Amino acid sequence: MSTSQKQMSIGMNILGFGAHSAAWRVGEVPANAYLDVEYYRNIARISERGTLDAIFLADGPALAGDVSSSPAGRLEPTILLTAVALATQHIGVIATASSTYNDPYNLARRLASVDYLSGGRAAWNVVTNAGDAAAQNFGLPGAQLHVDRYARADEFVDVVLKLWDSWEDDAIIGDPMSGRFADPSKVHVVDHVGEHFAVKGPLNVPRSAQGHPVLVQAGSSEGGKSLGSRYADAIFTTQTTLEDGLEFYQEMKNRARQWGRNPQHLKIMPGISTVIGSTEAEAQARFNQLNAFNGDDGLIDQIARRIGIPARELDLDGPLPWHRIGPVESFEAGSHGFLEAQLNLARRGNLSVRQLSQRILVGHRLIVGTPEQVADSMEQWFRAGAADGFNIMPDMFPSGVETFVDEVVPLLRKRGVFRHEYSGSTLRGHLGLPAVTSRYANSIQRESA
Amino acid sequence: MSTSQKQMSIGMNILGFGAHSAAWRVGEVPANAYLDVEYYRNIARISERGTLDAIFLADGPALAGDVSSSPAGRLEPTILLTAVALATQHIGVIATASSTYNDPYNLARRLASVDYLSGGRAAWNVVTNAGDAAAQNFGLPGAQLHVDRYARADEFVDVVLKLWDSWEDDAIIGDPMSGRFADPSKVHVVDHVGEHFAVKGPLNVPRSAQGHPVLVQAGSSEGGKSLGSRYADAIFTTQTTLEDGLEFYQEMKNRARQWGRNPQHLKIMPGISTVIGSTEAEAQARFNQLNAFNGDDGLIDQIARRIGIPARELDLDGPLPWHRIGPVESFEAGSHGFLEAQLNLARRGNLSVRQLSQRILVGHRLIVGTPEQVADSMEQWFRAGAADGFNIMPDMFPSGVETFVDEVVPLLRKRGVFRHEYSGSTLRGHLGLPAVTSRYANSIQRESA
Repeated sequence: MSTSQKQMSIGMNILGFGAHSAAWRVGEVPANAYLDVEYYRNIARISERGTLDAIFLADGPALAGDVSSSPAGRLEPTILLTAVALATQHIGVIATASSTYNDPYNLARRLASVDYLSGGRAAWNVVTNAGDAAAQNFGLPGAQLHVDRYARADEFVDVVLKLWDSWEDDAIIGDPMSGRFADPSKVHVVDHVGEHFAVKGPLNVPRSAQGHPVLVQAGSSEGGKSLGSRYADAIFTTQTTLEDGLEFYQEMKNRARQWGRNPQHLKIMPGISTVIGSTEAEAQARFNQLNAFNGDDGLIDQIARRIGIPARELDLDGPLPWHRIGPVESFEAGSHGFLEAQLNLARRGNLSVRQLSQRILVGHRLIVGTPEQVADSMEQWFRAGAADGFNIMPDMFPSGVETFVDEVVPLLRKRGVFRHEYSGSTLRGHLGLPAVTSRYANSIQRESA
Repeated sequence: MSTSQKQMSIGMNILGFGAHSAAWRVGEVPANAYLDVEYYRNIARISERGTLDAIFLADGPALAGDVSSSPAGRLEPTILLTAVALATQHIGVIATASSTYNDPYNLARRLASVDYLSGGRAAWNVVTNAGDAAAQNFGLPGAQLHVDRYARADEFVDVVLKLWDSWEDDAIIGDPMSGRFADPSKVHVVDHVGEHFAVKGPLNVPRSAQGHPVLVQAGSSEGGKSLGSRYADAIFTTQTTLEDGLEFYQEMKNRARQWGRNPQHLKIMPGISTVIGSTEAEAQARFNQLNAFNGDDGLIDQIARRIGIPARELDLDGPLPWHRIGPVESFEAGSHGFLEAQLNLARRGNLSVRQLSQRILVGHRLIVGTPEQVADSMEQWFRAGAADGFNIMPDMFPSGVETFVDEVVPLLRKRGVFRHEYSGSTLRGHLGLPAVTSRYANSIQRESA
């Protein structure tokens, strides 16, 4: 064990039945498992056996997908991850929550509560939400412009961080004899007044176990990169080639420096979708089995929808019609960063419509191969300076996480790039992030003000 | 065991360290116990040993009270009760959440998620929030008018119930072989457009274990009574005398009838604050011990603040200055129903300022006495038709709930008015409420619409 060497961080992304859209059809678990807490607890316990940093849940405030052909709806992440955290001891829990359709006061408090109950293992993945479906669940006729969402998100995060700072670490005295409960000079109003929010504070829950929950950001648009480099502790990103990965890594570290931050305190974690077999042939057979569930129509429709060109004008086994594809910003509201990465990959790799569609179905950088091949790629990116860690998206659960933990993690440990055991008890500790102190320490902005 | 006889329902109200404001000073548990999940799990397990229907958490979206002299801040109830539910098997969990400072889409989903994870044991206590402190955490300069809060609350509940109905019971097919996940004709948009909300739906989580969470209402103002009688499954209320209790009970059952409801499906549950001892003298000694922590200044200040008359003009051991007290509606925004009940009690009982203040400190109807006296009073109200059950607020935890479960519950069982064991697994079942089916069953308002 070489504890002096830099170690990578690993998050396990639990996307329904797995990253592959057909995972539920294989039948490893019942079709309603995604609504059952035991399904998630099992994945978390396996991940914890592998000393992973955290599990991660994506989310959105609208019913997505076609209910007739795929599992739809999700349990709310802060609720579900509370249940999972209480069944584990070490692993972090990262909940996605919208900055577009929440109030900062309520969300700051809910996340602080998860941090309390988990003993300092909570993180918030801050997202914005595009799309008319979400907007129409919150009183709007349709989605707001892209730029507005990030302006709100920036201010939202600023307010949440202020509220998390509103109680200092040592505000509570808790002396029943004298009756002194807290030092009011260490409980602060935040008096935020901005373009989108006016929030007085203090928060109605004291400072939580990690100081405050870890902040994660996952968007790769300009607004997302600005927000992430300024505020986030970790960035989840879609980078499909090592060159792109190196470039993104350097850009984000530079941006962090420009915000006056120590770039080591911003962890860059690209996503990897994994389809693992004992041999390459076994891995490919597993991938083929999953792909067989998606008919040709489904594959072509997906690309047609993404690039805004009718399906009948596309050739499934031909190249993409590059001369007809505009800049990603012109496409339907959604994750532009993700789409751009996929299109770059298709362009460089000369992928056919079918190949691109299959890759989009699993998302992120896809590795179909042996445990050694997965470990090789992770080690390569990590040592090259393209990643501080990875957000792993197995093809399907629970077999995908079992194989990763039992076959890939031992290799990473042997190579000295991943921990053998947890050294601390908080997610902030796992990620190697420093303790945070309240910005209001020693200020006079009192609760009674 | 006489199962044919009507049984009462009992909820355990966990108000911080107990209903008595000085409970934390006795030192039964550490001063930070109210932020520790084990504290709540312990109370829930004891309550479950006593086959109580539910535990209950009050809440508000602002820091309340004086942090220097009393425990302030609370863990968010839907998060905390998820953690508690996962450590118990039968008992219901009732979370208070604001209709004034939430979005119906997010809250409906979060509560449905708690219902999923608890296996059908979740309830929502719908409240409105007055007070400038809350308003100022949500972008407003001060509180809205009383009447507006309830107009919004009515529509909020309407939207939440529609969203909970948006997936029919049997919408999920879940057939991995054919790839059919759900029947889209059983997943419905709600297309709500009202004065306060426009929400399209469907909800992004399928129909939960109880059909939908139980609905509780606790306000006794006109707006609260209208809302509760129309929508609630159970009403928590402050009734301090049997006459008031009988009158309120009949009024609410009549109102339910006027809404076209079966009045038996609206459970009236008055609050009782308990200070229990083996003898009356022991109970009084326990009460005296708690009261000794509150100095005379604190007692007189509390009444002065409530009735808007300077403390120096009040006589602690004299009567209230009735000729100077206006109608409760003229007092500072807050729970008018609660204050009115307390003033009625003081008027009828000729209570001094000190006596009223001590009673307000513990809240609701106060019984200082033996287990027999508590059981007698509960049985009397139940048999007289003033209550379908009770919301119990012990003076302090955990001793207050232990004594209630070990000493009072056996008496109620012996008298045939309380269950010996749980007969079902859902809170709806414990309360004797019928199953609920989706309003959209057999309609054509499809998800794809």
